[in-house]
Amino acid sequence: MTDDEAIERASRARVGRLATVRPDGRPHVVPFVFALVEADQGVRLYWAVDHKPKTSTALQRIENIRANPAVEVVIDEYDDDWSRLWWVRLSGIARVVSSDDERSIALQALDSKYPRYLTELPEGDVVAIDVRSVTSWTSR
Amino acid sequence: MTDDEAIERASRARVGRLATVRPDGRPHVVPFVFALVEADQGVRLYWAVDHKPKTSTALQRIENIRANPAVEVVIDEYDDDWSRLWWVRLSGIARVVSSDDERSIALQALDSKYPRYLTELPEGDVVAIDVRSVTSWTSR
Repeated sequence: MTDDEAIERASRARVGRLATVRPDGRPHVVPFVFALVEADQGVRLYWAVDHKPKTSTALQRIENIRANPAVEVVIDEYDDDWSRLWWVRLSGIARVVSSDDERSIALQALDSKYPRYLTELPEGDVVAIDVRSVTSWTSR
Repeated sequence: MTDDEAIERASRARVGRLATVRPDGRPHVVPFVFALVEADQGVRLYWAVDHKPKTSTALQRIENIRANPAVEVVIDEYDDDWSRLWWVRLSGIARVVSSDDERSIALQALDSKYPRYLTELPEGDVVAIDVRSVTSWTSR
């Protein structure tokens, strides 16, 4: 698939899996919800830490990113018919959003994708992932 | 959920996402199919590199594991009803299987889980992940 199609599929996906590297060098991976937006150069993902439940997991992700901002996200859909498999991988650099303006943009993007956020806005950190490379694969 | 329930859910899952760390310290994450088996101590996952398509991705995973055997797997199911969300994370040590006997055990476990493997046995490397820790979360 083309990069444009890969980004389109990533944009539509309801969930992705985010890999970071812990300070001790071991990998960490969790499912996460995100919104994809157009950026000055390429695309950017936003995700937010919910205020509840305040798990150690959310904090681990933030701690990892502060120590090593390189992250990778995979988006895929599984099917027992393996001729239908595909994935899109987005590699990028993550940073905790510090500007109020950018936080508003991120929350608006998340709100419009996930109805749940309309009733309960995330109160934790917002993280931006500036995508540096797009890789995709399809079995077809 | 208990560790036993987490392992049961992981065992039933048709797909997981596998995170490794590249030699340059960046994370790498891909969807993968696996079979979970009981081991002497705890549990073990097996997955196999298909012979076709012979992607650079499959090789990247193997290269990563040889340089840094620490891996993490996440198993989850997404639902727009966030009260139904859960995940199970398995952290462990990966190694390329070198013994013919263990390769047979692994392929048998994969065969019985995935019908596709009955018609087309993987010919690439088989990798074992010895699980060292189980973490789980549920929104309920």
